Amino acid sequence: MRLSRYFLPILKENPKEAEIVSHRLMLRAGMIRQQSSGIYSWLPLGKRVLDKVNTIIREEQNRAGAEEILMPTVQSADLWMESGRYDAYGKEMLRITDRQDRAMLYGPTNEEMVTDIFRTYVRSYKDLPLNLYHIQTKFRDEIRPRFGTMRSREFMMKDAYSFDLDLDRARESYHRMFVAYLRTFARMGLKSIPMRAETGPIGGDLSHEFIILAETGESEVFCHRDILDFDVPGSDTDFRDAGGLASIVDKWTTLYAATEDMHEVERYENEVPQDARVSARGIEVGHIFYFGTKYSEPLNAKVTGPDGQEHAVHMGSYGIGPTRLVAAIIEASHDDGGIVWPDAVAPFDLMLISMKAGDEACDAACERIYEAAANAGLDVLYDDTDERAGSKFATADLVGVPTQVVVGPRSIASSEVEVKNRRTGERETLSVEAAINRLTDGR
Amino acid sequence: MRLSRYFLPILKENPKEAEIVSHRLMLRAGMIRQQSSGIYSWLPLGKRVLDKVNTIIREEQNRAGAEEILMPTVQSADLWMESGRYDAYGKEMLRITDRQDRAMLYGPTNEEMVTDIFRTYVRSYKDLPLNLYHIQTKFRDEIRPRFGTMRSREFMMKDAYSFDLDLDRARESYHRMFVAYLRTFARMGLKSIPMRAETGPIGGDLSHEFIILAETGESEVFCHRDILDFDVPGSDTDFRDAGGLASIVDKWTTLYAATEDMHEVERYENEVPQDARVSARGIEVGHIFYFGTKYSEPLNAKVTGPDGQEHAVHMGSYGIGPTRLVAAIIEASHDDGGIVWPDAVAPFDLMLISMKAGDEACDAACERIYEAAANAGLDVLYDDTDERAGSKFATADLVGVPTQVVVGPRSIASSEVEVKNRRTGERETLSVEAAINRLTDGR
Repeated sequence: MRLSRYFLPILKENPKEAEIVSHRLMLRAGMIRQQSSGIYSWLPLGKRVLDKVNTIIREEQNRAGAEEILMPTVQSADLWMESGRYDAYGKEMLRITDRQDRAMLYGPTNEEMVTDIFRTYVRSYKDLPLNLYHIQTKFRDEIRPRFGTMRSREFMMKDAYSFDLDLDRARESYHRMFVAYLRTFARMGLKSIPMRAETGPIGGDLSHEFIILAETGESEVFCHRDILDFDVPGSDTDFRDAGGLASIVDKWTTLYAATEDMHEVERYENEVPQDARVSARGIEVGHIFYFGTKYSEPLNAKVTGPDGQEHAVHMGSYGIGPTRLVAAIIEASHDDGGIVWPDAVAPFDLMLISMKAGDEACDAACERIYEAAANAGLDVLYDDTDERAGSKFATADLVGVPTQVVVGPRSIASSEVEVKNRRTGERETLSVEAAINRLTDGR
Repeated sequence: MRLSRYFLPILKENPKEAEIVSHRLMLRAGMIRQQSSGIYSWLPLGKRVLDKVNTIIREEQNRAGAEEILMPTVQSADLWMESGRYDAYGKEMLRITDRQDRAMLYGPTNEEMVTDIFRTYVRSYKDLPLNLYHIQTKFRDEIRPRFGTMRSREFMMKDAYSFDLDLDRARESYHRMFVAYLRTFARMGLKSIPMRAETGPIGGDLSHEFIILAETGESEVFCHRDILDFDVPGSDTDFRDAGGLASIVDKWTTLYAATEDMHEVERYENEVPQDARVSARGIEVGHIFYFGTKYSEPLNAKVTGPDGQEHAVHMGSYGIGPTRLVAAIIEASHDDGGIVWPDAVAPFDLMLISMKAGDEACDAACERIYEAAANAGLDVLYDDTDERAGSKFATADLVGVPTQVVVGPRSIASSEVEVKNRRTGERETLSVEAAINRLTDGR
């Protein structure tokens, strides 16, 4: 992609409305634009990151056996009356009356609707386990939306719903999602820590928040240091091996880890040796939850079991907010110059900077590198504009593409370019040939 | 994907509510489910087709130089008051009041919002041409939603918006989208015919509907037979060659082609020789439209021109409804047995049918074919259930996967399988080896 033809509206000034660093950087890097309070457009650079995040989420959901569907955003109020949540949900629910005077709403979540789909088609325990997910826009009419896409009113959510015959099997479904979440965040370059969360009136131990550490995180978290060094389950994980998954979950949930809300000082001090105590700031990026028959009972979602009897299905829900996650990644990975994208979610792999667009030697070298990188499957953003050098470097650092290649008229005379690692700041002078080999190595 | 673990709720009976064949087949094949009047969920099989359709749309938009963004679904009413459409739009607009008592709406289209984005960032003609598109959910509160996803209330739309300094350049943007649309539909296996459409009060010749022929089409269309044989521009089309694009558009718009609404009997009979007259049923699958400064004037979206003066930008919009298009493809491609997917949008490439799941030889042959096909990058739906043969064949025909491979205990004894072409019905008996080679040939 040539920057001269790319819609990347960089802001030079810090936007006043941004209270946190991710919001500021997303606005400055031209990733998003606020359309109304808590409602954002995703501009081309932001959309690319969002797509990469969603692709990873999708791949890991599919790997764990969840199946993708797409439920609508507008729902009938009737279903919510059936579950009893229509009145309980309060003002965060955006209520709508259609032209036929029917009570509708903009879905803040989909337990009711997915349960309705389930009860329409599934009759027997033989069709279980079932896990349906979608990545869809949600709306929650927050009284005070803030922090950009970190807490917006209209947002994107991946929500998965599992259906099982009983608690034991529901636990297996829960474990599959638990491990899928560990893998999902790790693939995005994030260190996530599952922390026990409120289960509400149901009780039990089957509710976890996935927290990533970030100095600018929204809340305090406490955990045993060893968790930070645990290996994340590999891509060869067998999601049909219930025992194997249980032992992974066991390992990740035995050591102390708690958010502010769930923190027990005494237990913490008893269980965690002083030198292993980590207290840090964190951001919630995922939440998984077993809720039993809370919706299947009122909505009458039952299957016939092996005993010939009808059983209300045991359900769980599993959420990740991709639009929130993009902001969280920035909170966890930035410096004074701007965003520092982890490779897997970077909008481009390579930023190619011509120091003198129009100069014959610079243009030729840039075209050659651009083509070689593109042929190797790299996404390249090629700054072919005639901005000043300082402005170009600032933009490259701000948008945070992992590798920068600088082509200047002086160095190109000796056929050399500079390769900069955005994260470490390391620079190397290489021949064009060597730079191309480095960039396309292993592709 | 193993059918035993795939959520594919096939309906044996014809659903009463379905008035047209695509609606009936989408319900029967478990592609969609109605949630409320004119509001649908996409189940796994349908979601796969929708994704393939969107991928093709996206690739061709990008190829033609359009840039993808994502605007929100909920919009502020203020913008629509600025353009004057808030009152004019009528009851099809779903109006919403949020908890702060602000007037909002569920976007039925995005001219206002994209113009607002434009005016925020773009100041100079040097940043033109610009074409921004998104694929996003829209809502139009139709008084009588019907025909399944062909005319629903909540639907998906790809809408692109072009911005240019003047009419001549806007015409070039229009041509790029015109050619992109020809390519988009052709890649989906559809023969689309651009037909002159109403331009409204602006006048001019820059409005076309893209119509595909289908016996069950919604309206009558008239055209010169030769158009049906025109070659569609190849993937090597140079979208920067304005002259080349103009001559493609010229070729496709010279011969007579008109929908009912625009049909002129006298001109038709004068211009089209009797034996070249085609009168058929058609379905609108795309609409492109130049509307000049209709929104840029009231919304004050201006750029400085080379003359140093301010100019309201000339805009066009370009729409395709992916959720509608999936239904249209089925209208154009089905038979008595069910759907006949064009290869490029088929939910799976191959349907592998075991006639005796659990039989050692059948299982082994199926596993071998499944693995070889998957390794070659084919998407395989493997019917490993213990349904009766007749039911399996009916399901395979209904869901319309292009190639079926039938593995039965008798033929597998001599190491043979049957390969069936869903479209032609042709069957061939091949050795497992030969079948694998045939399926993976060229992959």
